[in-house]
Amino acid sequence: MTNPTPQVVAVMGRGVVPRDTPLLIADDLGFTRGDGCFDAARVTVVDGRARVDHLDRHLARFRRSASALELPAPDEDDWRALVDEALDAWDADGEAVLKLVLTRGPEHSDRGVSALLTITAAPDATAARAGVRAATLGRGYASDAFASAPWLLGGVKTLSYAVNVAARREAARRGADEVVFTSSDGFLLEGPTAGLLVAADDQLWTTPLEGTGVLASVTIEVIMDAARADGVATRFALFRPGDLPDTDGAWLVSAVRGVLPLRELDGVPLPHDPEITARLAAAAGF
Amino acid sequence: MTNPTPQVVAVMGRGVVPRDTPLLIADDLGFTRGDGCFDAARVTVVDGRARVDHLDRHLARFRRSASALELPAPDEDDWRALVDEALDAWDADGEAVLKLVLTRGPEHSDRGVSALLTITAAPDATAARAGVRAATLGRGYASDAFASAPWLLGGVKTLSYAVNVAARREAARRGADEVVFTSSDGFLLEGPTAGLLVAADDQLWTTPLEGTGVLASVTIEVIMDAARADGVATRFALFRPGDLPDTDGAWLVSAVRGVLPLRELDGVPLPHDPEITARLAAAAGF
Repeated sequence: MTNPTPQVVAVMGRGVVPRDTPLLIADDLGFTRGDGCFDAARVTVVDGRARVDHLDRHLARFRRSASALELPAPDEDDWRALVDEALDAWDADGEAVLKLVLTRGPEHSDRGVSALLTITAAPDATAARAGVRAATLGRGYASDAFASAPWLLGGVKTLSYAVNVAARREAARRGADEVVFTSSDGFLLEGPTAGLLVAADDQLWTTPLEGTGVLASVTIEVIMDAARADGVATRFALFRPGDLPDTDGAWLVSAVRGVLPLRELDGVPLPHDPEITARLAAAAGF
Repeated sequence: MTNPTPQVVAVMGRGVVPRDTPLLIADDLGFTRGDGCFDAARVTVVDGRARVDHLDRHLARFRRSASALELPAPDEDDWRALVDEALDAWDADGEAVLKLVLTRGPEHSDRGVSALLTITAAPDATAARAGVRAATLGRGYASDAFASAPWLLGGVKTLSYAVNVAARREAARRGADEVVFTSSDGFLLEGPTAGLLVAADDQLWTTPLEGTGVLASVTIEVIMDAARADGVATRFALFRPGDLPDTDGAWLVSAVRGVLPLRELDGVPLPHDPEITARLAAAAGF
């Protein structure tokens, strides 16, 4: 048995529980159907106190995901209290990830939703923050496939992530660190657990959300807000893989891992300016 | 508290457990990522003994799903023994559904896969077997989107079913009983939990599996095998919604609910021959 990754588990209505406590019964719809949502934020320890980055924004996105699934709206005060209790119990150093999870609950009884959170030590992201090699993988959808099709749950952070996990396995097989999904009409969309940011023409660009099914990245929003405050224009646009060599750089952006420069895409080297990366990372709090 | 639906729960390595036993810890990947597979078969009680329809075929498909997810192959003898133990504990009458579930297991510890099954009383399908009204809903993928893209997990019965559940909610909103997913190029694919069968030109047709992402339906295979034994030709083809009025009928086919005549698609009445339905149902054991 390897030394387990440090983790705190807390359950709504119950508080912190031992991490190995079985919590979900066999017919919880979050388990049997991936019918639920989650959100993930970074936890850092500052002056001995654990805190969550951009918790307000993550709670707002969690609420939007729940709404898209027609789940009862998460009670923000209850979640904040549960997060605080878990942070108090968190005593590891370094970076960690807070994951909030809400499911439709057991299918065949009247228990209502299941709601819990975990705080888990994050793998060291130092190497990824210096640069990643990515492979493009087709996501199968056209870039407008999600327009007027809310049942496809585009942009909803559901528990149905098997394709995202399988894509990462495929990337590893190809010797790549990361994946950038492409649409069937040839545009770059996002990573399995990261958004896409591009610098070009002295502006910052990201994938449009409308119709693409792309998740609204909290960290990209934070970066874009900071950029606009600095007078940098921010835009939405679809890029093709072949566009990237002519830009000032591209990044995969994750709330947990931060701002990861795309140094190579399908074996093609991409421009990289460490100064821009440092500025983006600082804006995002990394 | 309403009277709960009868259910038996059994866990690999542990046997039958009380149905409300919490079984999964907070970071089980089947729960947090929908990263696992399942299969579902009908249970009937014949002469006082509960039995599973076509268990061999369902176990074979379960094994294929696990393989596509790069999960360890389920041990068939272990699963059969667990199924037998659960069937012995099953004492309700009427039809039920056996669900086998296998996940990648907890993310941050070394416990290995999670494996369990449930037997749950099935809702009465009498009305659906007389006929259903379906709505078409776009699935967002072209009919060849899954060719050469194994990471999209086409035809794999994963735990990531949130879109299937959302589609059923959308159908209910439209006043329909069922959904038939369509490809972005306009072809009928399958239902969220059922395959599509069409009778035309004295032949039986179903959706091709290759490239479409459609799940291989055990019950359609059983029907097709019986048809061929009777001298009826069986074929794979893609149909458009507008083709169906000129056929001899179409059915949604599920291992649990049986052979459901499509009486109406997006409000358009479809041909229905109760004799063909009766023959297909008998072939499938319904």
